[in-house]
Amino acid sequence: MRRDARSGQGGGARGAALLPPLLCPSRPVPAGPDPASEPDPARPPTRPSFAVLAAAHGARKMEDYGRFLALLGSALLVGFVSVILSLVWVFHYREGLSWDGSAAEFNWHPVLVITGFVFIQGIAIIVYRLPWTWKCSKLLMKFIHAGLNTIAMILAIVSMVAVFDFHNAKNIPNMYSLHSWIGLTAVIFYSLQLFLGFAVFLLPFAPVHLRAALMPIHVYSGLAIFATVIATALMGITEKLIFALKTPAYSASPPEATLVNSLGLLLVVFGSLILWMASRPHWKRPPAENAKILRPVGATPEGTEVESTMTNSSNADKSDLRSNTDAARKQNMKLDDAGQRSTM
Amino acid sequence: MRRDARSGQGGGARGAALLPPLLCPSRPVPAGPDPASEPDPARPPTRPSFAVLAAAHGARKMEDYGRFLALLGSALLVGFVSVILSLVWVFHYREGLSWDGSAAEFNWHPVLVITGFVFIQGIAIIVYRLPWTWKCSKLLMKFIHAGLNTIAMILAIVSMVAVFDFHNAKNIPNMYSLHSWIGLTAVIFYSLQLFLGFAVFLLPFAPVHLRAALMPIHVYSGLAIFATVIATALMGITEKLIFALKTPAYSASPPEATLVNSLGLLLVVFGSLILWMASRPHWKRPPAENAKILRPVGATPEGTEVESTMTNSSNADKSDLRSNTDAARKQNMKLDDAGQRSTM
Repeated sequence: MRRDARSGQGGGARGAALLPPLLCPSRPVPAGPDPASEPDPARPPTRPSFAVLAAAHGARKMEDYGRFLALLGSALLVGFVSVILSLVWVFHYREGLSWDGSAAEFNWHPVLVITGFVFIQGIAIIVYRLPWTWKCSKLLMKFIHAGLNTIAMILAIVSMVAVFDFHNAKNIPNMYSLHSWIGLTAVIFYSLQLFLGFAVFLLPFAPVHLRAALMPIHVYSGLAIFATVIATALMGITEKLIFALKTPAYSASPPEATLVNSLGLLLVVFGSLILWMASRPHWKRPPAENAKILRPVGATPEGTEVESTMTNSSNADKSDLRSNTDAARKQNMKLDDAGQRSTM
Repeated sequence: MRRDARSGQGGGARGAALLPPLLCPSRPVPAGPDPASEPDPARPPTRPSFAVLAAAHGARKMEDYGRFLALLGSALLVGFVSVILSLVWVFHYREGLSWDGSAAEFNWHPVLVITGFVFIQGIAIIVYRLPWTWKCSKLLMKFIHAGLNTIAMILAIVSMVAVFDFHNAKNIPNMYSLHSWIGLTAVIFYSLQLFLGFAVFLLPFAPVHLRAALMPIHVYSGLAIFATVIATALMGITEKLIFALKTPAYSASPPEATLVNSLGLLLVVFGSLILWMASRPHWKRPPAENAKILRPVGATPEGTEVESTMTNSSNADKSDLRSNTDAARKQNMKLDDAGQRSTM
């Protein structure tokens, strides 16, 4: 429905041609060398150095792609091992999982936080960076980003309910610890972040200047909340090990303490990998196809990508089409400077 | 000594003219509108739109400068209140400070960590961002950055010695908790960061390409260590409140618990403010004066600032002098893309 309405605003055939598909096109786009930087065989080779530059650029991109894959693989491995360790913790050393007000209900808390609020949120953060998704429309990727974050929030909320339930069943006060203060603050900010993200970047109503103004805040607060969630998990591990380990105590370093301390270290490594991948400018999703074709070889991908769901696409389209002019370059620099690029 | 040697390499009068002063020049540089963007009264006004553009640019910069000052003021206030709260904690609620193996020796740990490893490290991170230091040479700012980080490291090490001393005196095991694992890891990485920072960016031996390759890692690991230190402080607060509060317990939320939980929240706010200021590209220190004069109005400051202490300054000088050519712009984009700018 919305896509049709937008197509009408885009202006006939030109608008339809610029419209990004909701799903990924069947023709695969190679993730390595940029196809836009390869010379068109139908045109005469007016600039002989172009192919050489493109080849060097492609080689650098392939090397960079390999580095990205290695980091992504490491992050997935570390995240996956963290989830497994949380399950080993609760099943091997603790009371397992149930929903009966017992300690086994509490155990849902670390498992769901590590699975949802850490692992899935981490993947949601870097989902725009996966090179094989760059052939998919920005709108589809926004849905995936929002969907993963929604799953993470649901798991975080269920994990909190488990703790409140357990505390109430055992007459343990709620919300007294720094862990609970910062954890609840993180969940509230995460909900706000999701709500504002939906309203501003996914729904087609927000004007471009509002998206441009809020994007750097959205990106920064997303990363800050993610880091805060990991810090809160580390506090939670500390609390739980002190409270749960009595004979032998935490200070005697029993195997459970070593296992769960290692889990804490893995969470820090996972967070560091995700934040590194998310903060490298050259791993950003390139701008839309029409801008990409006009982009000079070797230049950092610039331009605005706020057009996917906005009601009036004319500004972004103009900006994309002008992107090899000096005025557009300046405007792109300004927009990029403000963190406009919604690739995180 | 080193400055003289570099001047010789720079090539006579031209080299001396391009040499940045070690200290700040006496003529103040206004922190608001960019003096390079103001028209030269000695030249005829060939481009009448230039002054209008410069005025608009200046107004935007002044507004941005105000926003920076507000955030800096908030960070200083929050950091200062955190240090005061740590002193209130140990003097009003705990045993005060001494160096006798008692709990009063342990108390140096939170006070020195919050003062040095959090507050001073935070200031060290954003010291390049202070607009009134942009008239000072990059070398001087590097010394200040390195000096503040050295002070922070010394305080962090003394704070660790206090804990080991206290543990040994009381026969409490060392290094069993997640707090101690991550804290020691952070101190080790911080020492490595300082050592590599000195060797690569302050001493004049490292070649430009090595500085360019290591700068994004230096910047990222600096921010990651800072965030990890705050996470570790939160774990430490959690541990200490659980261990120290017995009658009434932490779960009864006595005034001490509320005060120290609030201190923990303030540390998160302080960290968020510092990381926001450090990660805004438009608050980066502009490139050297010679590059600044050639920079077009409205463009993001680009260029490499690795020249301050390097042995062969010719590359950077060339890059600065060419910075209004298209080739230089592309090169600058590449360098900036790799996080080359050493302004953090």
